[in-house]
Order: sequence, then structure tokens, then C-alpha cells
Amino acid sequence: MRRKGIIIVVSGFSGAGKGTLMKKLTEVYDTYALSVSMTTRAPRPGEQEGRDYFYVSREEFERRIGQDGFVEHAEYCGNYYGTPRDYVESQLEAGRDVILEIEIQGALEIRKKFPTALLLFVMPPSAAELKRRLTGRGTETEEVIERRLRRAVEEAQGIEQYEYIIINDDLDTCVKEMHSLIQGAHDTPFRNKEFIGEIRSQLEELTKGEK
Amino acid sequence: MRRKGIIIVVSGFSGAGKGTLMKKLTEVYDTYALSVSMTTRAPRPGEQEGRDYFYVSREEFERRIGQDGFVEHAEYCGNYYGTPRDYVESQLEAGRDVILEIEIQGALEIRKKFPTALLLFVMPPSAAELKRRLTGRGTETEEVIERRLRRAVEEAQGIEQYEYIIINDDLDTCVKEMHSLIQGAHDTPFRNKEFIGEIRSQLEELTKGEK
Repeated sequence: MRRKGIIIVVSGFSGAGKGTLMKKLTEVYDTYALSVSMTTRAPRPGEQEGRDYFYVSREEFERRIGQDGFVEHAEYCGNYYGTPRDYVESQLEAGRDVILEIEIQGALEIRKKFPTALLLFVMPPSAAELKRRLTGRGTETEEVIERRLRRAVEEAQGIEQYEYIIINDDLDTCVKEMHSLIQGAHDTPFRNKEFIGEIRSQLEELTKGEK
Repeated sequence: MRRKGIIIVVSGFSGAGKGTLMKKLTEVYDTYALSVSMTTRAPRPGEQEGRDYFYVSREEFERRIGQDGFVEHAEYCGNYYGTPRDYVESQLEAGRDVILEIEIQGALEIRKKFPTALLLFVMPPSAAELKRRLTGRGTETEEVIERRLRRAVEEAQGIEQYEYIIINDDLDTCVKEMHSLIQGAHDTPFRNKEFIGEIRSQLEELTKGEK
């Protein structure tokens, strides 16, 4: 069975540990490529060009939209965010699975354009643990934590749109599980239409030849 | 996330190696239970009661149908074949995944009654390899091989009804892949409705409490 690269969309509650999980996954296994989004918002302290985002001007972003340069893009709070098409397509062609961290609207847009895309939803083991993690960062105000929990309530409405849920309890275990899930997802019939078609024609050929 | 046992239905071309695969899987991992079918057909030379089938009379089988004693049953060529309910339900309750080897009609009947059932389709890497395996047994006549290949053409029509396809190339690799697929399949949202429901209520509770 020939293995083509697929897009893997990772969504999930803020505080579920998506970022760390994806970074670790791409470090441990070399079959994954992590897509970096492009944005028009200004870099925050500590953020790095090309690691956290590619930072461009509004004009540049709109020029790229006009050239169909994004596989998905959206505007939040007056800033554009998008996934550059070039990187995604070159990695898929090289047989790598490309990982994107985006929210549900973008996830569903990706699935429409790439029907073999795999949508994963990362969750903490419980809501109490989510709150503990958000609080534990120590960098957020009560108000921000409150807002993130409310946002989680909304995000939780979309879980059924995802193919798998991933419980991020222990990081190393979770990375292994995520890898194994992705490997398995490659073996669904709708991601192997070509192979199934080939087997069918081969079988028909074999039985026709001997009638 | 609490883990409940699910039913795993294994179908696939005759000659794809389903039997060996399932036996090996249950030998290597103790979380699986292999269901043995009941039939009214006579044992063939070499077959063993309780290993290959449970052999009962037509009267006994019909009595059990009347008591809703099967999770699925069918009649082929004048003989009954069925999956006894007792064994399946007790193993599921014990948290084991119960493996059944049945054909597509039975598989779809199982899915209707057990919506979390996992349907797997085992295939050889190519049609030529299937023919080689059927021929290689050395025990079948040309006519039987021919009939099995024609049957494979029919069976191949149903592949899209299955959740995953499993390519049986190397037995040990395939057993590992199958185990990993099954583990992953446990993490689909529709098999975790209860857990998702709990997280949702917990989140709502948390945010309500702090408004």
C-alpha cells in the first residue's frame, strides 16, 4: 500500500498541551512536518519568526490571499492568520504528514479541501485538570483563566467533528499514542481509495482471465 | 477515560490469513477474547468442538434463536451459523474486546446492534498474492480456487463499510498493527460519548460556579 502524506489538524482546549505535544512528536518521529502559520499580528515578547509564526504586513498577507497562497486563513480580532500552501504541499509530496494547529473553523475548512485530512482533538483528563494547568502557569490573571474555561465550553461543542480524541495525561505516553493513532488512521478505506481500486481491478482481471 | 470492551468484527478474503492473525493476536495480547461460532453443520475432519465451532442440532439452534441467544446468526447452504450472546456479553463486561470472524451481512447486523463495534477488513497485499496463497495451500482444486477468487470480487464491493483495512503481508508486523489500530479506534468520539459528556458537564459546572 503506497503511503501518501496527509494533513493532521490538531485542535483542543487552550491548556491541553497541544504545542508541547506537537513539538515532541515531530522531534521523536521524522515522518512529520510541523506547519508554521503566517500572521499580521505583531510578535509577542519571546516569540520567534519562523518558529512561532511568520510575521508579515497586512498588504503582504492580502497579496498572498489573492494568489491562493493559503490552504486556510481567517481573521480574528483584526488580524489575519493563515497556513501557507507551499510548505504544506511540498511536505505532503515528500510523503510527510503535515501537522497544523488550528481551531475548528479552520479544521473543517481543511477537511473540505483535503478530504483525507485527519482531525485530532486534544483534551486534558478532566476539566479540573484543565483548570489546574491554566492556573499553574502562574502567568495568567483570574479573568484570563475564566475566559479560557468559557472558551473550552464552546470548543467542547465541536468534539464530534474530530476523528479521534487524545487525552494528554503523560506527555511521553501521549506522543506514542498520537503516533500510533495517526499510523492507524492511514489505514481507513477512504484514505486508500487508489489501493482498493487496484485490488478490485486485479481481482476482476484474474477471474475474467480464467472464465 | 474508562475503557469498555468493544466487539471487533474481522472480515476479509478467504486466503487473506484472518484465522492465523486472530489466533496470534489473542495469544500475544490478553485484552482480547476470541468468540467461537455455533453451527448446525457437521464437524469436518480435523475440526474441534469449542475451538473451530460449537456443534449443535438444528432443534437446539432454533431453541436458542427463540431465546435471543445469538448476537447475530444466518443460514448458509441449509446450515445455521451464529455468535452466542452469553460469551460476547460476559467478555465485554469484563472489559475485553471480543473478536468475531464473520462476513459482511453479519458485520453490518452487529454494527446495528452494537454501534461501537469495530469493523476490520483483512486483505493480502495484492490479488496475485491472494491467488498464490490459495494455490499454495495445495489442498484445493482449481475449481475451488476459482470460486474463492470470484467470491473475493464480491467481498471487495463491501470494503468501504469497514473502518480500517489491514494488509496481511508479514504476520508479526500485522498483529502489532492490528493491535495498535484497535487501541486507536477506542479513542474515537463516538466510542467515548460518556467521557465527552462528563467533560462538558464538568466544564459548565466550573464556569457557572465562577460567574
